[in-house]
Amino acid sequence: MTVLFNRVAVIGVGLIGGSIARALKKNQVCNHITGYTRRESELKKAVELGVIDDYNSSIADAVKAADLVIIAVPMGLFGYVFQEMRDSLSDNTLITDVGSAKGSVINAAKKVFQELPQGLVPGHPIAGNEKSGVEASFDSLFENRCTILTPTENSSPQSVSLVSEMWQRIGAKVVSMSAEHHDLVLAATSHLPHVLAFSLVDTLSRMHDHSEIFQFAAGGFRDFTRIASSDPIMWRDICLHNKDAILKVLKLYESHIKGLEQAIAEQDSVALEAIFTRAKKARDEHVIQ
Amino acid sequence: MTVLFNRVAVIGVGLIGGSIARALKKNQVCNHITGYTRRESELKKAVELGVIDDYNSSIADAVKAADLVIIAVPMGLFGYVFQEMRDSLSDNTLITDVGSAKGSVINAAKKVFQELPQGLVPGHPIAGNEKSGVEASFDSLFENRCTILTPTENSSPQSVSLVSEMWQRIGAKVVSMSAEHHDLVLAATSHLPHVLAFSLVDTLSRMHDHSEIFQFAAGGFRDFTRIASSDPIMWRDICLHNKDAILKVLKLYESHIKGLEQAIAEQDSVALEAIFTRAKKARDEHVIQ
Repeated sequence: MTVLFNRVAVIGVGLIGGSIARALKKNQVCNHITGYTRRESELKKAVELGVIDDYNSSIADAVKAADLVIIAVPMGLFGYVFQEMRDSLSDNTLITDVGSAKGSVINAAKKVFQELPQGLVPGHPIAGNEKSGVEASFDSLFENRCTILTPTENSSPQSVSLVSEMWQRIGAKVVSMSAEHHDLVLAATSHLPHVLAFSLVDTLSRMHDHSEIFQFAAGGFRDFTRIASSDPIMWRDICLHNKDAILKVLKLYESHIKGLEQAIAEQDSVALEAIFTRAKKARDEHVIQ
Repeated sequence: MTVLFNRVAVIGVGLIGGSIARALKKNQVCNHITGYTRRESELKKAVELGVIDDYNSSIADAVKAADLVIIAVPMGLFGYVFQEMRDSLSDNTLITDVGSAKGSVINAAKKVFQELPQGLVPGHPIAGNEKSGVEASFDSLFENRCTILTPTENSSPQSVSLVSEMWQRIGAKVVSMSAEHHDLVLAATSHLPHVLAFSLVDTLSRMHDHSEIFQFAAGGFRDFTRIASSDPIMWRDICLHNKDAILKVLKLYESHIKGLEQAIAEQDSVALEAIFTRAKKARDEHVIQ
């Protein structure tokens, strides 16, 4: 396989950024990876772990000689990152990112750039776990996972094709869709479940005798609430940056929960059985184990 | 180890009843196990699999010579089962069960027996998975899991002690509490999560493009919704039989979800971070991996 890029800059070397860097190295997708993260201690760790080759103390320096810039920072920092890199990008620098809410990333770019760069191809790998930090990164995180690309009206076909190839080279299946559709799909399958799991654990933790209550939590509860161990700051930011889509599915969910509550209150066994049967069927059919 | 019982009757030889029978055999807790289930084909399968020694075609016959009767039927059948066995029990037959809602089991017993038998010690092993049926049963299901006993005001100390020993011999940690408290704890840690997971999958399955939506479900979604693959009939029955406690925690949960919705709508980052941080802390502290 040929090398796709000479120099890659990873802005934000945590679980996702670190895993991309590891995967790019393992699959010989580029010759050199430089990193930038706010805390220098994290960057030193990333070099020691062999995740990146070296690091820069500013975003501007990190992106200067890069053919591809990968932004893997929390949702709240995109405006800042675009601002910092703006004057150091060349006309043909490719830029992609891993942000969980694409409308928000594109809006942040629109505010910084006069017009959206042709090299900007926003993306989102549907991968990750409840861990965070570069130590948790691993090179197979994206294998057989979907990466969704949400090209803008300005993204050049060549940029889309190169970013797509990069993801495929590290094992991902690449799908393209509009940012708006991405945000709704992710609100439904990821953001809503996280919000519900956080809220369930929070509800129980505020009950009287909560430590006794948790003691009787079985395997189902562990599975159900695993995502409530995710990074609170990251999820706060996702809620702030995908507000509209999350509110849309959350309201829909609340109305269904109200219906279920009513069925329980009225001992409506037909309605309960119908809801549970439909759900089991949908999960067994659609969710790959 | 001495044998605790000569003859045990298991009424309902599915995942839980079958697993108890397997565990009793493996740990030599009794000499003989007879089974009863409505469908004879299931009983034949259970004998073939070596789960039970033989079977009866009526509950009355099954319990006649038993020292211990274990009722492991769906919540909706307790009244029927108690009725069928009433005239065949001796004064010192021990009776226990595995029903998920103890108030309801005790009420069913009260309706059938003039007064609650001294040998009746209601119980609930906090174990199981989304599978069902005798083929899914296995002898280590209860190892290191809690079994909650909810003795009635009539349960004799000797009965409680023997039923407790039975559970300990098959690996369970035994805890006693009131039926009312059990029902609230289980509503919070098991029934509510199941209801929420079923409802989430149902909500998504009713969205436009639902098969595309499910396609992008990642690991977190799989874990979160695993319990929505559980038996719909069993969960319908649990909702019907633990109505009050489930409604209590469900209403509490709905009020918290409303608060979270408001925080998202108002972009209240402080409130969002507080909720998510509290939840992560509680889960990391209290839920054993």
